[in-house]
Amino acid sequence: MSFTFSDLKNDNGNNWRAYLEHDFVRQLGEGRLAPEAFRHYLKQDYLFLIQFGRAFALAAYKSPTLADLRHAKAGLDAIIDLELGLHIDYCTQWGISEQELAELPEARATLAYTRYVLDTGNRGDLLDLHVALAPCLVGYADIARWLVEQPATVRGEANPYEPWIAMYESAEFQAAAQAEIAWLNQRLAEVSPSRFRQLCRIFDDATRLEIDFWDMGLEQRM
Amino acid sequence: MSFTFSDLKNDNGNNWRAYLEHDFVRQLGEGRLAPEAFRHYLKQDYLFLIQFGRAFALAAYKSPTLADLRHAKAGLDAIIDLELGLHIDYCTQWGISEQELAELPEARATLAYTRYVLDTGNRGDLLDLHVALAPCLVGYADIARWLVEQPATVRGEANPYEPWIAMYESAEFQAAAQAEIAWLNQRLAEVSPSRFRQLCRIFDDATRLEIDFWDMGLEQRM
Amino acid sequence: MSFTFSDLKNDNGNNWRAYLEHDFVRQLGEGRLAPEAFRHYLKQDYLFLIQFGRAFALAAYKSPTLADLRHAKAGLDAIIDLELGLHIDYCTQWGISEQELAELPEARATLAYTRYVLDTGNRGDLLDLHVALAPCLVGYADIARWLVEQPATVRGEANPYEPWIAMYESAEFQAAAQAEIAWLNQRLAEVSPSRFRQLCRIFDDATRLEIDFWDMGLEQRM
Amino acid sequence: MSFTFSDLKNDNGNNWRAYLEHDFVRQLGEGRLAPEAFRHYLKQDYLFLIQFGRAFALAAYKSPTLADLRHAKAGLDAIIDLELGLHIDYCTQWGISEQELAELPEARATLAYTRYVLDTGNRGDLLDLHVALAPCLVGYADIARWLVEQPATVRGEANPYEPWIAMYESAEFQAAAQAEIAWLNQRLAEVSPSRFRQLCRIFDDATRLEIDFWDMGLEQRM
Repeated sequence: MSFTFSDLKNDNGNNWRAYLEHDFVRQLGEGRLAPEAFRHYLKQDYLFLIQFGRAFALAAYKSPTLADLRHAKAGLDAIIDLELGLHIDYCTQWGISEQELAELPEARATLAYTRYVLDTGNRGDLLDLHVALAPCLVGYADIARWLVEQPATVRGEANPYEPWIAMYESAEFQAAAQAEIAWLNQRLAEVSPSRFRQLCRIFDDATRLEIDFWDMGLEQRM
Repeated sequence: MSFTFSDLKNDNGNNWRAYLEHDFVRQLGEGRLAPEAFRHYLKQDYLFLIQFGRAFALAAYKSPTLADLRHAKAGLDAIIDLELGLHIDYCTQWGISEQELAELPEARATLAYTRYVLDTGNRGDLLDLHVALAPCLVGYADIARWLVEQPATVRGEANPYEPWIAMYESAEFQAAAQAEIAWLNQRLAEVSPSRFRQLCRIFDDATRLEIDFWDMGLEQRM
Repeated sequence: MSFTFSDLKNDNGNNWRAYLEHDFVRQLGEGRLAPEAFRHYLKQDYLFLIQFGRAFALAAYKSPTLADLRHAKAGLDAIIDLELGLHIDYCTQWGISEQELAELPEARATLAYTRYVLDTGNRGDLLDLHVALAPCLVGYADIARWLVEQPATVRGEANPYEPWIAMYESAEFQAAAQAEIAWLNQRLAEVSPSRFRQLCRIFDDATRLEIDFWDMGLEQRM
Repeated sequence: MSFTFSDLKNDNGNNWRAYLEHDFVRQLGEGRLAPEAFRHYLKQDYLFLIQFGRAFALAAYKSPTLADLRHAKAGLDAIIDLELGLHIDYCTQWGISEQELAELPEARATLAYTRYVLDTGNRGDLLDLHVALAPCLVGYADIARWLVEQPATVRGEANPYEPWIAMYESAEFQAAAQAEIAWLNQRLAEVSPSRFRQLCRIFDDATRLEIDFWDMGLEQRM
């Protein structure tokens, strides 16, 4: 019996669908999401990204081999040297200054998902950490593909959220998600059924905390 | 300039009051809290307690001296050898079996507060960890004292939640909270203003996550 | 293919034998070990025990289930509530006061083994941590049994180190070591060959650091 | 009372001098170090560098602010993207292939110092971690300056170890060490006397483990 990433998704089917097809995602795809909701999400996503950087740093610390360390570092570089800058630019376009970002408190949903990932990584091994990160990295790629397939999704200038969709639909982001799935599949092929049950729990918890993140955006909650 | 635990509370005054005087607490004090809300809270509090045990184990690991290690271990002993058993008994009285407790998934608010405490402890030092724990340990003692002072609070058999109030009002629990405040005051006396700002942020985040825990109970949310 | 603890020992055969049959052990068994060497070892073993306590606390923090947490806590209790006291008494009999113990600096070999165990535990999962601890827990039981079988070993009052041999030969200590082997065998039965290679490296590193600990005693090194 | 990095060095004066003026350093400066000793040191220094990378990754994980995270990441980048490559090239010049490096087991002294740093970082905060790293980063800069001042030191092609001296004497390396001292001085200015005592213990332990690292090279020990 050899497990794959698809088994993790199938195991928590309802939550994965609830996350992918969340109202925040639908409204964003149809271009009718309240700008204030998007701004609130964007700001918290900036704080999320910093904690995500800490998670990849933790992965580098926990790496048993130099190859693993370089792999984790590539993720850290992508976040801190690249994505954080893009995110700051994007926030500026939505009227959110870098100064405002620097002084933001974290919303509860931001604290919840990020700290769950970090503690899971500290408690377990590199695979636990990656499974906790997967709903974000792989999920956003799935979401972009799902959105693009929906007839109700509005593309191009008619949708103020087009750049968001385009970014996660991009070949680069989709390839990064595929690489992560390949990494996970390689490890999952070796785990025992009881270990797989633990990983399902982690994947399900993390997915629920991602749903909360959409809720936070939609309801503009702290 | 020498800081104390009171300074932490004063710094986040609104959140501390919102936590202490939360509707969940008021309704519990007046005996009109929905039993289902209390049951939901009780079940999650069991899961919380296990993570709290992990937090004291982390404190033992992080201890720079044998005295600190023994202090952390005393907390771990109290939780795992004593409180967990009391909690299981109390749950039984409310119709929640130990089997049910063992199979419970964690609610989002439980994940959020506990993992925030654990990551804060890993990231920082023993003082960061204790400050993150303080809203629970010290807060429950404050809450019991506040409740007892309210004219609307119903005591004795007329209130199904009397044992809950009595437990946290007890001399033992109040003494444990006082000991924690003394420990904190000793360390806070030595910190610099910039370090104190960091600790205020931790205390405020943890307090907000405790408010969420009450919300979770009141609204019976997962 | 199902691995067992014996496979770990066989994999590093030379080091395991070099550790078990070390000159420190032989001289102790024959009652001709220099008292100063034993005193030096005893003092460092006290410091070792405190770090060992931190390792079991780390195991409690890292536990994925309440059962694992209780198991780790039992180890922590045994070390801090029981063995540390016995060790202090034993040191007193050898003319080493508790005050002297409290002010001791750690020898390099003590730092090396204990910190290797702790970092291995943080980096990996509970199994990595236990494998790093095994040369101590299981090794001392093996050593006592090996010593007792050697014709050159002197038993009874003729050997000033009789209490040391008797302690590790005792049914209690042997049973604790057997329980640890059983715990390890259960987990090792599920690991893949590549994971087993990682664990062999950890077991071998830890065994070499135990050999260093004997060297430290014999040569009274700091 | 405001502490500085010099206070840490003065506190353990004998060990710091024993580390700086170690026979390995003297023989290297005079060009009479056995090539096999240097090769042994070089190989272990490669393994050391990987663990040092893990230590900076840990610092990134532990960073309380984005500025701290970027600072730690700069150290990680320097080690993994730059120094590791230089080190591999340098090893090649000494007849040590990358393949040989990849298969090396860690010597005891390598395990000891690196794991002490990593556990100290996990146990404490960012300052504890940096103090444990300082004997390496700042020490090598001090050593190069000390060597250059010694009349017995041989410079230029007459000394096969000239590139080693030149690297650590370089403006870049000296500036990195100065930046680290500045970072430490800023934090040390705020610590209390009791906290300073803890940091002295860490600095002293780490310095002793560096001395061991020289011994390991000189005696070609595993």
